[in-house]
Amino acid sequence: MALIVQKYGGTSVGTTERIRNVARRIAKWRRAGHQVVVVPSAMSGETNRLIGLAREIQSEPDLRELDVVASTGEQVTIGLLAMALKAQGIEARSYTGWQVRVVTDSAFTKARIQGIDEHRLRADLAAGIVPVVAGFQGIDGDGNVTTLGRGGSDTSGVALAAALKADECQIFTDVDGVYTTDPRIVPEARRLRQITFEEMLEMASLGSKVLQIRSVEFAGKYQVRLRVLSSLTDPDLDLDTEAKSGTLITFEEDEHMEQAVISGIAFARDEAKLTVMGVPDRPGVAYAILGPVADANIDVDMIIQNASVDGSTDFSFTVPRGDFNRAMAILEQVRTHVGARAVVGDNRICKVSMVGVGMRSHVGIASRMFRTLSEEGINIQMISTSEIKISVVVDEKYLELAVRVLHRAFDLDQQPA
Amino acid sequence: MALIVQKYGGTSVGTTERIRNVARRIAKWRRAGHQVVVVPSAMSGETNRLIGLAREIQSEPDLRELDVVASTGEQVTIGLLAMALKAQGIEARSYTGWQVRVVTDSAFTKARIQGIDEHRLRADLAAGIVPVVAGFQGIDGDGNVTTLGRGGSDTSGVALAAALKADECQIFTDVDGVYTTDPRIVPEARRLRQITFEEMLEMASLGSKVLQIRSVEFAGKYQVRLRVLSSLTDPDLDLDTEAKSGTLITFEEDEHMEQAVISGIAFARDEAKLTVMGVPDRPGVAYAILGPVADANIDVDMIIQNASVDGSTDFSFTVPRGDFNRAMAILEQVRTHVGARAVVGDNRICKVSMVGVGMRSHVGIASRMFRTLSEEGINIQMISTSEIKISVVVDEKYLELAVRVLHRAFDLDQQPA
Repeated sequence: MALIVQKYGGTSVGTTERIRNVARRIAKWRRAGHQVVVVPSAMSGETNRLIGLAREIQSEPDLRELDVVASTGEQVTIGLLAMALKAQGIEARSYTGWQVRVVTDSAFTKARIQGIDEHRLRADLAAGIVPVVAGFQGIDGDGNVTTLGRGGSDTSGVALAAALKADECQIFTDVDGVYTTDPRIVPEARRLRQITFEEMLEMASLGSKVLQIRSVEFAGKYQVRLRVLSSLTDPDLDLDTEAKSGTLITFEEDEHMEQAVISGIAFARDEAKLTVMGVPDRPGVAYAILGPVADANIDVDMIIQNASVDGSTDFSFTVPRGDFNRAMAILEQVRTHVGARAVVGDNRICKVSMVGVGMRSHVGIASRMFRTLSEEGINIQMISTSEIKISVVVDEKYLELAVRVLHRAFDLDQQPA
Repeated sequence: MALIVQKYGGTSVGTTERIRNVARRIAKWRRAGHQVVVVPSAMSGETNRLIGLAREIQSEPDLRELDVVASTGEQVTIGLLAMALKAQGIEARSYTGWQVRVVTDSAFTKARIQGIDEHRLRADLAAGIVPVVAGFQGIDGDGNVTTLGRGGSDTSGVALAAALKADECQIFTDVDGVYTTDPRIVPEARRLRQITFEEMLEMASLGSKVLQIRSVEFAGKYQVRLRVLSSLTDPDLDLDTEAKSGTLITFEEDEHMEQAVISGIAFARDEAKLTVMGVPDRPGVAYAILGPVADANIDVDMIIQNASVDGSTDFSFTVPRGDFNRAMAILEQVRTHVGARAVVGDNRICKVSMVGVGMRSHVGIASRMFRTLSEEGINIQMISTSEIKISVVVDEKYLELAVRVLHRAFDLDQQPA
């Protein structure tokens, strides 16, 4: 008998019919003797509808009040799902974030979980009741409703699994796992049976939007065994088969680890690149350039500063394409201030990254990557590396080609030995 | 400077445009120096949508979970209205039932308010903040979400006014007050400037669905000055004019009281009448008949037992028409048990009632009512009287005619001297 936390995404509970299917799936686990805690998202489209109403009232909605409004989506789902479980003959009880209590800080719309009081949930589990806990929401120290930000239900699920020391946190979603890359670009992309947390973090932050990145960090920090699996399979699917399906995100590299050097290829479209040229090479100049950009709430991703030549250097970074014009305007002001020669930008670029813990112990991955790209005539504009990732910036028109040739060159369509 | 509780119904907050108008109206009161607490309902149609979702899951939804779902409608409105007030430059803060806390019993879907902790609201008012409190909802002693039943937001408003000892509770709705009768039936129907609580109770229970009856009881019990007024007027309407508009429901009969004998004519369609004939006249027989009906959760309204003749009597009562068949089936079983002769029923009747505190001091009202109806050839099937009300049951086809001739006979279209 295991203690399982099951999180269901918005499409999984998008209609009352699907909510009934989710209840059947939970009932199957329950009847097999497992203890189950369920964390549903809002019905798909509902959070957007609520935020849309708020924006009709205030173009920039008050954040405290926005959380009051947005959190109702999950509250509806927990009630409906508890009803569906009762209709299946399974004892269930819904809990909002404040009822549990999921205590967060007061950063409305992007609050962070500080603690979870799990004693009511434990009492329910001991009594054979399935607690159905609203994802995405919490309560701050002053009793205000908070939400965790987009995709926050994943984090709720993982945090509950950590608090309850669950055997596994299962994230049911509309894909059946994490792939070596996006199958829409590379049809041969292969589902990974396992991936490490570090790799998943790199994959998630680069556009494989299977899991919210914060939930992966949380799972890594609290050593929660995390599995991504599909809610679109037959709810009566054999339980043993289901239990091994999807992708397991492990915190132990050696846990039956697939021995691939590279686990996957992530990418990010809609990037833009900015370069401040001829920057005097003196202390504080990086901050002088990036400080105003950060103050404008623009996310900076890759940052590269070349070695200086004749006391001056070029300073480049990437931002989301939507922030390109604002970033350029800021840099124009910064340029005179830091005494740089020029500012140039390119908003038609993308980023392609190869991710794999195996890189640590294998040399030559980077050179093989660069050779593969050059053989296709793809010019590399920027390079950035970490322990388990190599990222390159290329012209956006080469995105699909770059991903495809790298996928083939590293045999990612093959099951590793 | 007064302390006013303003309750806004579902149509008043039915769109974001209307929510903005409500905010303008509140801002007007606030800027004139008044302290305002606002209690909005769910956006019109929203509660029905939520209950509809629940019914798709369970034909008879679990009541605890139904309250979790249904209470979200008001939670959305408080957030949106607080935003709209901020957009008007008015400081505002939303509160759910559990945040206030509005403590109720645990009778899910029809909970009763047991107490309100008003200290946060008082602190807000002192700080110039408009608290926007979700109507219809509360929290029980175990921390469960409860709702007060249909129209419960009126009760929330009145209860808050009582707790805060507000100078007036204003119920903004889509009609501009309480009328002598339904203007759709009698175009000459006149708006009452004032009505007593007792009269309002009789009017409310008989189909003038302006106010939830429990809210009126609550207002009477706690001596809350209650005013029904329109939210469809120009939000920038002169404040003094608005403050005197609508219908004031008073707990003091002599407060500038209009001296009419009859205040209004209420009626109820969709009634049905059942008669158990030849009931042995012995103790306990009324309970033997009505006990099983009550056990089946059928609301019994008028109950009449004639004087007995030869040791047996006829026992009649009315029920909502939708419960007629069930009630007949129950009576057929009861009949043999109590040794009655026969059970007859009629599901094509209606009830017409004349209401007025002036009846207490005026004789001959009943006879004038009966004469008026007989002159039109309307047969009276049942009669029931109270201190301030005379009700008759007549064939449903006479409803409009009966209301019209009584309205005219008692000069209800004329402003009283």
